[in-house]
Amino acid sequence: MANDVLTQLCKILEERKQAADPNSSYVASLHHKGLNKILEKVGEEAVETVLAAKDAQSSGDNRDVIYETADLWFHSLVMLSHLGEDASAVINELERRFDLSGLEEKAARNNS
Amino acid sequence: MANDVLTQLCKILEERKQAADPNSSYVASLHHKGLNKILEKVGEEAVETVLAAKDAQSSGDNRDVIYETADLWFHSLVMLSHLGEDASAVINELERRFDLSGLEEKAARNNS
Amino acid sequence: MANDVLTQLCKILEERKQAADPNSSYVASLHHKGLNKILEKVGEEAVETVLAAKDAQSSGDNRDVIYETADLWFHSLVMLSHLGEDASAVINELERRFDLSGLEEKAARNNS
Amino acid sequence: MANDVLTQLCKILEERKQAADPNSSYVASLHHKGLNKILEKVGEEAVETVLAAKDAQSSGDNRDVIYETADLWFHSLVMLSHLGEDASAVINELERRFDLSGLEEKAARNNS
Repeated sequence: MANDVLTQLCKILEERKQAADPNSSYVASLHHKGLNKILEKVGEEAVETVLAAKDAQSSGDNRDVIYETADLWFHSLVMLSHLGEDASAVINELERRFDLSGLEEKAARNNS
Repeated sequence: MANDVLTQLCKILEERKQAADPNSSYVASLHHKGLNKILEKVGEEAVETVLAAKDAQSSGDNRDVIYETADLWFHSLVMLSHLGEDASAVINELERRFDLSGLEEKAARNNS
Repeated sequence: MANDVLTQLCKILEERKQAADPNSSYVASLHHKGLNKILEKVGEEAVETVLAAKDAQSSGDNRDVIYETADLWFHSLVMLSHLGEDASAVINELERRFDLSGLEEKAARNNS
Repeated sequence: MANDVLTQLCKILEERKQAADPNSSYVASLHHKGLNKILEKVGEEAVETVLAAKDAQSSGDNRDVIYETADLWFHSLVMLSHLGEDASAVINELERRFDLSGLEEKAARNNS
């Protein structure tokens, strides 16, 4: 499911990046304002995630920290899109780092 | 593919969180040090992502920004794991926000 | 001069914190919104300082990085005020750490 | 007093920046590693300040947040030094913004 969601989201981000009108969407406006504005948003969402995590630890309610982490991932995908990359680059790096393709292959063999 | 990678990664993170020995892995040591240490890492990786994006804009080389974004996502997954959540919570929030399940359903109909 | 400026600024911050009307000033509105809002601003200004420093390195123009650092120090003073502290606590810590009172004493002796 | 402390601290930072040996001090090693390393530290200390402020709000103990704010100001001074500026640029900007020279003049008149 994550595959479909991130892949679909990256398609939407790419379409909105290509839009000629900067007012056509929030994503189009971010690209129009440029990389610094996008990076300010990445930084802001990181701090809001940290604050939400501290509050979740006190309250036991995780809704805000999930919401802020989604905002953080979303804006980091807009950043990657601005630089000509998408989620697959990050996913491939995580896969390489944890040798997850190997784990999956091994898991598949164990199930056969 | 993202599905498999994030799901597999979250399984690994959960196993390493459960480990009794804090020295058994980097993830186990982060959980042992506690939420503040994990959140410091989220903040550090956000700043390193911002710096790598600025350098990518100058150099045209995206390798470091991909690497740092993977670090940022990884540590935000450790944070969610510490709070009893995993990647699916973030993916579900992104799906809900962009109505991606609807888009997928529509895409499936268009292909039939 | 720094003495007078930081001391005067802290007096202004204290007066604005005490104001009953949250709309009376930007500082009053920050205190009314609470610590999380103030800390979001500290985080935002830190990221804007980092971006301005990168741009200063490329352009040789330091005006923005000075402006953003002033914003960062200002919002960290609002944070300290919210917690019942002021600039003197930070100045005392820096003095203690670098043994600057000792240096000043020595400098005074050398000049006599 | 803040005047003396920040002025003295900037003199020390300038001397340590000029040192030929990168191992002669922490400040010399930061300059040798370059602007990105210094900015990583500014970002780290901002996040540690945010976490310490949240903890101070819960515990009522402000010692850590004062310590972390001193770290944040210290590393922002190293950043300014790396770019050829010092604390006076920030103090002048705060003075200009709040018209503090005017306030001081007025205060002096009121006391006469």
